[in-house]
Amino acid sequence: MFEDIIKNVRAKTPLVHCITNYVTVNDVANILLACGGSPIMAQDAREAAEITAIADALYLNIGTLSEQSVKSMLISARAAEKKDIPVILDPVGAGASDFRTQSAKSILEAAPVAIIRGNVSEIMTLAGVKANTKGVDADAADMTRFSIDFLVDTAKSLARTSGAVVGISGKTDIATDGRRTVLIKNGHSDMSKITGTGCMLTAVTAAYAGANPDRLLDALAASFCAVGLAGQRARERMVTENAGNASLRTWFIDNMYKMGYADLKGGAKYEIY
Amino acid sequence: MFEDIIKNVRAKTPLVHCITNYVTVNDVANILLACGGSPIMAQDAREAAEITAIADALYLNIGTLSEQSVKSMLISARAAEKKDIPVILDPVGAGASDFRTQSAKSILEAAPVAIIRGNVSEIMTLAGVKANTKGVDADAADMTRFSIDFLVDTAKSLARTSGAVVGISGKTDIATDGRRTVLIKNGHSDMSKITGTGCMLTAVTAAYAGANPDRLLDALAASFCAVGLAGQRARERMVTENAGNASLRTWFIDNMYKMGYADLKGGAKYEIY
Amino acid sequence: MFEDIIKNVRAKTPLVHCITNYVTVNDVANILLACGGSPIMAQDAREAAEITAIADALYLNIGTLSEQSVKSMLISARAAEKKDIPVILDPVGAGASDFRTQSAKSILEAAPVAIIRGNVSEIMTLAGVKANTKGVDADAADMTRFSIDFLVDTAKSLARTSGAVVGISGKTDIATDGRRTVLIKNGHSDMSKITGTGCMLTAVTAAYAGANPDRLLDALAASFCAVGLAGQRARERMVTENAGNASLRTWFIDNMYKMGYADLKGGAKYEIY
Repeated sequence: MFEDIIKNVRAKTPLVHCITNYVTVNDVANILLACGGSPIMAQDAREAAEITAIADALYLNIGTLSEQSVKSMLISARAAEKKDIPVILDPVGAGASDFRTQSAKSILEAAPVAIIRGNVSEIMTLAGVKANTKGVDADAADMTRFSIDFLVDTAKSLARTSGAVVGISGKTDIATDGRRTVLIKNGHSDMSKITGTGCMLTAVTAAYAGANPDRLLDALAASFCAVGLAGQRARERMVTENAGNASLRTWFIDNMYKMGYADLKGGAKYEIY
Repeated sequence: MFEDIIKNVRAKTPLVHCITNYVTVNDVANILLACGGSPIMAQDAREAAEITAIADALYLNIGTLSEQSVKSMLISARAAEKKDIPVILDPVGAGASDFRTQSAKSILEAAPVAIIRGNVSEIMTLAGVKANTKGVDADAADMTRFSIDFLVDTAKSLARTSGAVVGISGKTDIATDGRRTVLIKNGHSDMSKITGTGCMLTAVTAAYAGANPDRLLDALAASFCAVGLAGQRARERMVTENAGNASLRTWFIDNMYKMGYADLKGGAKYEIY
Repeated sequence: MFEDIIKNVRAKTPLVHCITNYVTVNDVANILLACGGSPIMAQDAREAAEITAIADALYLNIGTLSEQSVKSMLISARAAEKKDIPVILDPVGAGASDFRTQSAKSILEAAPVAIIRGNVSEIMTLAGVKANTKGVDADAADMTRFSIDFLVDTAKSLARTSGAVVGISGKTDIATDGRRTVLIKNGHSDMSKITGTGCMLTAVTAAYAGANPDRLLDALAASFCAVGLAGQRARERMVTENAGNASLRTWFIDNMYKMGYADLKGGAKYEIY
């Protein structure tokens, strides 16, 4: 299912325009290079549309918003619509503050979003389900209180109302376009010990979507598998070498760099729901 | 002395709201995760108070100030006072520019600060002693010109006038609440070859204080010991493996990730002054 | 040729005031420490001139511009002229947007720039030659369409009109002051798999120039050799250990940390044009 997805990324080197938070922006850039894409960051309103116009995908991440960056996100979202390239939204911390929740909703209203990828708390917030976003990590209660069936139904509903493919990260990841749904079981909970794994995952999704704009659900599912698999392998090495989360980060990106279709074919764990 | 400090951090996973510089913000986030805390960065005035209200500690670092970030720091400091969570201030570069010195003083006036942690030049500047802040590192002359007794007296004086527990980093670290004083001899001078060791130290202090709000002096002293010990171990490995400062950074954070009370008990070097 | 250049950096620990993008700022700080310099980042207009006044070199990088940072760059460029310290410009993405191109030109008009270091697409844009800047990496066509002779002539012409020493990165690096020209053949194309190698290179150039303000061409050529050599060594290890681009980044900075004159003497590959 993922062979062409991966090959297209490596063949096309999609340029991803990122308007993203300043906490994890360096990791986002390096994982884009690792997975076969090319990053460009630009968040001033004076160049946002111009940069989007040379890109293959637009990555919007609301991790550290400002008035200026929200403005640029809206400008770039409209420029992406005009150029018909996919917009990928990571609603970091939606629910943690009104500013974040409203900004995420403004983006969804400004232009068609191709893919939304968040954790349980963030996606529930956008879907209008009461959730407990505490900071930028999924709330512990949120992660267990909702059944997979409920999460799938909510994601499908959000996909239909927003027109976007929706991804929820968790012990089991969910990817749906409102009709087809894929469940992914790669990854390891220790990945939450690195800052920015969610941001990096969504960046990989953006690269995959940029190179495969007509197969958005497969691009999302493939990114869940590839990122999860890279995380598993990095985590195994962390345990073996008695290392810590900084080495985990390095090896995680290294594993994305080395990830080819053969790896993914051997290690991807997914099923059609 | 530090057993409960460490256990409380690992048990409570304190959420630390960070308004900090963009140079070392990623390292700050990763070391917070490494030491058992959880980071959230938010520095727009529209969400600052709301994010502080869900946090267990507020970390303010003036490394790359802007008009907006100073405004948000003051808003969040008042929100922290209202919620009664500790505010931890890292006055990066105080003395290097009027803007930094005045901003640090504004924060100290806006709301009670629980802990101030800086280098000799920065703390002397805040205490009104003539110093030579040259950039963001302690001035070489400043590091040797003042005797330990003078530094302790000045720190105690600043602690009494500000109401904050005061920490000075150096060959010997000083932690005082104005009455009790602890001297710490962990760490290694090569840690200054990594950017952000001071920022990371203060972030660990914030996590420790967030989980131990009634034992601020012990939390500060414990963070000096733990961070210093992690640095010593990383530095030993750098020498053994003939590596450089980028590996030093990785192994430093790794060592914080692995740091338990048993490590600290075996390696902490401190004495009551 | 480079012996004194390197010794002066290690002896003087030049303080480099950086106004730079938030993507690679942490790597810029760490490589400055690695190569023997000392970084300070400050980009608010209220402190820009004051910080420049304590520095030995000013590093301007237009990777993620904003109205505020451009304003501070112009203020600091004038402060650098007043103090007579070298200004080093990295025109990241010049040509990719009007905002970047115009900002780079504004800086060149505001005050004397000592060194401009960019990739082929960026330097051609500043020299008024039609180029295809696509994002922040040199355009693939641009890298092969121009002959070395044409690039040298264009760089010399830009050097004469701007008064700056000019450096172009590529398979063969070019450094010229308009009269003397040096070609450098260190480095490896895999270095483009790390974000910020260009930013880091220019930062090393700034440190070398700050410690050798009267030998700007040699400082630029030495930085090309040293950074290229560190990259080669890191890349060899990446291949040997079957690692990826995150390890490459770590080892690249580590190799700069260990780089002494003896290494450079043994590994530098350059010729007078």
